[in-house]
Amino acid sequence: MSGASEAAALERELLDEYRFGRQQLVEICGHASAVAVTKAFPLPSLSRKQRTVLVVCGPEQNGAVGLACARHLRVFEYQPSIFCPAHSADALHRDLTTQCEKMDIPFLSFLPAEVRLIDDAYGLVVDAVLGPGVRLAEAGGPCARALATLKRLSIPLFPRWDAETGGDTKDAVQPDVLVSLAAPKSCASHFSGRHHFVAGRFVPDDVRRKFGLHLPKYTGTDCVASL
Amino acid sequence: MSGASEAAALERELLDEYRFGRQQLVEICGHASAVAVTKAFPLPSLSRKQRTVLVVCGPEQNGAVGLACARHLRVFEYQPSIFCPAHSADALHRDLTTQCEKMDIPFLSFLPAEVRLIDDAYGLVVDAVLGPGVRLAEAGGPCARALATLKRLSIPLFPRWDAETGGDTKDAVQPDVLVSLAAPKSCASHFSGRHHFVAGRFVPDDVRRKFGLHLPKYTGTDCVASL
Repeated sequence: MSGASEAAALERELLDEYRFGRQQLVEICGHASAVAVTKAFPLPSLSRKQRTVLVVCGPEQNGAVGLACARHLRVFEYQPSIFCPAHSADALHRDLTTQCEKMDIPFLSFLPAEVRLIDDAYGLVVDAVLGPGVRLAEAGGPCARALATLKRLSIPLFPRWDAETGGDTKDAVQPDVLVSLAAPKSCASHFSGRHHFVAGRFVPDDVRRKFGLHLPKYTGTDCVASL
Repeated sequence: MSGASEAAALERELLDEYRFGRQQLVEICGHASAVAVTKAFPLPSLSRKQRTVLVVCGPEQNGAVGLACARHLRVFEYQPSIFCPAHSADALHRDLTTQCEKMDIPFLSFLPAEVRLIDDAYGLVVDAVLGPGVRLAEAGGPCARALATLKRLSIPLFPRWDAETGGDTKDAVQPDVLVSLAAPKSCASHFSGRHHFVAGRFVPDDVRRKFGLHLPKYTGTDCVASL
């Protein structure tokens, strides 16, 4: 099974068999992604400027997780801004957008093509554009353009868990920090960035066994662990 | 405004204005409640027997939070068991029940009337029977009977945030640990237990100001703070 189809089967298991809700999973994963940011870039170690985080959210579920991540980053006293390259028809996406808007998280109306402007304005970027099953070539025009810009940035790039797109093609965005739900073997060999986190502490033991997930030991109430 | 109607107005604001979902709020609050348990009763300080937690879940939203709390307690390596005194027709309640069942968290078919049996079998009890707006007198027979039993226990009692019922009447259950979302003034004066935690870090700043919530300073990524 490829990494992407394995991720899809894992999600189906959680939704259909365990009756997790999409809203619930997105909230758990957005929270875990934000916690991973705090571990890779602890607030006390950052200058005011470095606390500014650009979260780029695609129209699918990955983007919804990005929106939840941005909200938690705000709660953790980072300074997120959001850019959504494409409109989403998803009600969950819309509700999470409203939460962010009403918490005064700025939304950019466009992404500067001049990457120096982004490098100068933000401390890091969270790439929540594509889900694990979506290849760059299949992405719509605005998402592909946004990813092409992200590729050229010098500031740290922080993806959610699109582990499978991490090193599959020359075109893929190369992250500095990786967050995996399932620690897929296919990505670990490609990843050469600084931090690799595993979220997915909430994944029930039986599901871990079924999918052969070798998840690390988590400490205390931590929802992510460093590999 | 009474504590209960204030809590209801706060929830309406979050649901209607901020477009939080019920599933999302229940997940956030269940997680925060479980984290509060870990702070009041840290796992390394407990014997194996003390790690057993009886979570008593009512049929309304408070019970749904209890179910989410039980699931997180299991993830945090406590040993929760669940008792639901009354059937719930709520789909969210049912889904959260399935998550717990499939994670092999035991459900009791009845609550022993002999309190010594409960005192002997569990290290602590989480009371998620009634919501903040529900008075004991209005509760249905099975819930009232369960609460009458909980009142007579000697092991530590850990309610969610039914702060308003904390000391309003002689009949109310007197908790050892209190978890408030909104730190209502009405409860603080009555509470004489060991720990008082405030959850609600996720509550947006504007909502805190609107409702005059004086929430404490949270540390790092903590979702609860001790008062």
